[in-house]
Amino acid sequence: MTATAPEVFLTPHALLEHWQGHRRLTRRVIEAFPDEQFNTFAVGGMRPFGTMAVEMLRMAAPTVHGVLTGDWVEGVSADPKPKAEVLRLWDASTAKMNEGWPKIPATRFQETVNAFGYYEGRACDLVMYVIDNEIHHRAQGYVYLRALNIAPPPFWERQ
Amino acid sequence: MTATAPEVFLTPHALLEHWQGHRRLTRRVIEAFPDEQFNTFAVGGMRPFGTMAVEMLRMAAPTVHGVLTGDWVEGVSADPKPKAEVLRLWDASTAKMNEGWPKIPATRFQETVNAFGYYEGRACDLVMYVIDNEIHHRAQGYVYLRALNIAPPPFWERQ
Repeated sequence: MTATAPEVFLTPHALLEHWQGHRRLTRRVIEAFPDEQFNTFAVGGMRPFGTMAVEMLRMAAPTVHGVLTGDWVEGVSADPKPKAEVLRLWDASTAKMNEGWPKIPATRFQETVNAFGYYEGRACDLVMYVIDNEIHHRAQGYVYLRALNIAPPPFWERQ
Repeated sequence: MTATAPEVFLTPHALLEHWQGHRRLTRRVIEAFPDEQFNTFAVGGMRPFGTMAVEMLRMAAPTVHGVLTGDWVEGVSADPKPKAEVLRLWDASTAKMNEGWPKIPATRFQETVNAFGYYEGRACDLVMYVIDNEIHHRAQGYVYLRALNIAPPPFWERQ
């Protein structure tokens, strides 16, 4: 039995915990932005943090939904949104993810998916990419906050 | 048998592949910095990217070594180093990680470790934190490069 059982680094349950920990931190970074800079301030010709946060919304819950159902829709428009609206959509996404994730059969994560018309690969790698993308852009938000002379929330705090 | 087998999101093998993909990208970000800015340029009062890269060296291979052996040593000094020296240490770390990782029993990742005198938690969560920290600081390097008017390497390219 042990000879054929696959080795585990992370279970699906642990991955969702990890992901939602990151999303709690990102929510605090969104909150830390002044309303007036959320969709305007940037460094080095990059996108404002508000645009990046909307991109995260269009990836997170839609990825859980897509892996579960095979239906790939970004859900919300890519248009800039006020900070309060992004936070509202963030919390709605959290609830959708917590509801959908446990319904995904574990074997599904090793299967190939064609996601959003631009990604083809294992579902587990897609999920990791979505989390990586959030960490990546959130960190750019940290630089924006520092450049605005605002202390960002601690990186290691995920509760 | 299947009733008791733990569910798998990522195997240890897949995690190392994922990690080394990130490390290949980070290596390209290090390379993209001009020598003269690597240890001097910063935005918003943050640390230069060279200092962040040395921090990554003090976390990556030492974490693999620590999870494998229970011996927690950062390996290289925290002092700033020329870019060429960081790249040399980067490649040496890659080899050490590829050698050590497959020797770690999979069950070890679910055990609690006391790492580097400041972290206590599951080994799998420590490893995820080390990768998260690299993505986070590398993304800050992306902003520095953009502020220096240098195009960073594509985020999605990991080979």
